[in-house]
Amino acid sequence: MIIALDGMGGDHAPGEIIAGAIESLSAFNDIHIHIYGDEQKMAPFLQAHDRLTVVHCTEKIEAEDEPVRAIRRKKDASMVRMAQAVKDGEAAAGVSAGNTGALMAAGLFIVGRVPGIERPALAPTLPTIDGKGFVMLDLGANADAKPSHLGQYAVMGSIYTEKVRGIENPKVGLLNIGTEEGKGNELTKAAYDVLAEAPINFIGNVEARDLLTGVADVVVTDGFTGNMVLKTIEGTALGFFSMLKDVYTSSMKTKMSAALIKEDLRGLKKKMDYSEYGGAGLFGLNAPVIKAHGSSNANAIFNAVRQARTMAKHQVCETIRDTIGKGQTT
Amino acid sequence: MIIALDGMGGDHAPGEIIAGAIESLSAFNDIHIHIYGDEQKMAPFLQAHDRLTVVHCTEKIEAEDEPVRAIRRKKDASMVRMAQAVKDGEAAAGVSAGNTGALMAAGLFIVGRVPGIERPALAPTLPTIDGKGFVMLDLGANADAKPSHLGQYAVMGSIYTEKVRGIENPKVGLLNIGTEEGKGNELTKAAYDVLAEAPINFIGNVEARDLLTGVADVVVTDGFTGNMVLKTIEGTALGFFSMLKDVYTSSMKTKMSAALIKEDLRGLKKKMDYSEYGGAGLFGLNAPVIKAHGSSNANAIFNAVRQARTMAKHQVCETIRDTIGKGQTT
Repeated sequence: MIIALDGMGGDHAPGEIIAGAIESLSAFNDIHIHIYGDEQKMAPFLQAHDRLTVVHCTEKIEAEDEPVRAIRRKKDASMVRMAQAVKDGEAAAGVSAGNTGALMAAGLFIVGRVPGIERPALAPTLPTIDGKGFVMLDLGANADAKPSHLGQYAVMGSIYTEKVRGIENPKVGLLNIGTEEGKGNELTKAAYDVLAEAPINFIGNVEARDLLTGVADVVVTDGFTGNMVLKTIEGTALGFFSMLKDVYTSSMKTKMSAALIKEDLRGLKKKMDYSEYGGAGLFGLNAPVIKAHGSSNANAIFNAVRQARTMAKHQVCETIRDTIGKGQTT
Repeated sequence: MIIALDGMGGDHAPGEIIAGAIESLSAFNDIHIHIYGDEQKMAPFLQAHDRLTVVHCTEKIEAEDEPVRAIRRKKDASMVRMAQAVKDGEAAAGVSAGNTGALMAAGLFIVGRVPGIERPALAPTLPTIDGKGFVMLDLGANADAKPSHLGQYAVMGSIYTEKVRGIENPKVGLLNIGTEEGKGNELTKAAYDVLAEAPINFIGNVEARDLLTGVADVVVTDGFTGNMVLKTIEGTALGFFSMLKDVYTSSMKTKMSAALIKEDLRGLKKKMDYSEYGGAGLFGLNAPVIKAHGSSNANAIFNAVRQARTMAKHQVCETIRDTIGKGQTT
């Protein structure tokens, strides 16, 4: 199986991307990696490997590029070439740590949607207190959503969670402002009925307050709300650590306390870091595309490649196509 | 000035409500309090005070009551009588720690909206790391909102923040998924233009990630999103404290560390507790109505009464009426 990797995307490209590729090749001997990027810039980090192919590209999508325009104009960008390889069936799956918006545009316009899927969705795995995590979607591929979109997100998230995360009959919850049926805004009230009819294990509404305790394996919401929740978790966690740091450095006594607990707190911080759970899947495309975190190190790239491999191996996209195709009423 | 107080609402009624009333009367000698509730149940906690009047009511709104129905049927409920006193001009403002939905219904159907206000909004003050706090609205009075509603929320929040919180020319931000103009869903894109034209100090879009660092004095959003953000902050903070507790009780070393820092951590928890910032104002009504937290103790009731008094004293409702009336185009 060939996996296409954008060698130039992310804060630590190309060094950490290449290191992650080598790590992946060592772990899985059933994959080949095609890495796309500037040969000259990648050369210092490269080592010969019989399952690593370097494809030279002259361009690169920048973090500040306007997504759709960049994808259309920079035909020789590493991300565009990676997506094109997936589209052409040359690679079974693609991975990039670059510009999120551009990757979504590349997924939509180059790799293409599964027939019947109205909107693709961005689906990271978020942390829970027990370390199990849950898949949440959409986390910002589409700011606005219709009830039918949420129904498709639910099906895609459920298939992914079962096949890739190995959770049987995953619990799917609808993010809402109360747990009772009938609660919500116009969108969630209508989506409730759609989810109740979908071929999933729908457990009803779930509240934002209960996400970190692992109330569901898959949590469905529109991209605007999902983005809000994700950034609120991030902001609250960061604020918390900053306040904790202030407390710990405020006196001799608290400094002593800090020294005793330093390592344990580092573990806590790691637990709250969702990049530890791998990249975010872009669901609803014809082939697996994984968005690795922008600050990905080699290990994060390894996790993303592993995810892409598992999605391809377990035919997640094919199952989505068959399930959505069957359930389609339009 | 007479302030009407629901003596039966909240988890610690009537004892803590009465204690809060007495505390308020001691602090402000320009107020009278009319407390509504079951005379017999309140008797053990009451003490004679020349500025405290007890009004006997035979009914009470329960936490699990369906809001609108309860308000319409329980005509002699303490909350309904309190709202009626405000409506009749007998009291200048009202306070309750009872059922939030019922209080919003009482505000809307009994006290009534300011002419020109399309929707009232629930507006608590949320914590920031520096302890200054910010007003956020709507936090759930209306799940769905139109751009014009968000414009009115902005004006009301700005007036309140200036008059009651004493912040001159308060910075008003629109909660969105990115800071750049043009970002967002249909609602926030349209609301951006409405806020840009409003008689406020509009600073543009703000992100959920930056709320706790005090990026704005007033943050405007629809009730669904507001509720999500509030509950995500709550859930993340709770999850964090629970994980911290696990870390602290995991070994002798961490237990020693905990002993050294116990009190400082309690201060941190207090900092994150938004009930410390007083009750939530129900903006857009003809008179001030304050929703005190359901778990209010005497001090929280004192804070809510103080808020109600300040709103009445500084004619917040009148200013809202004049400002919205002027800006009205419909």
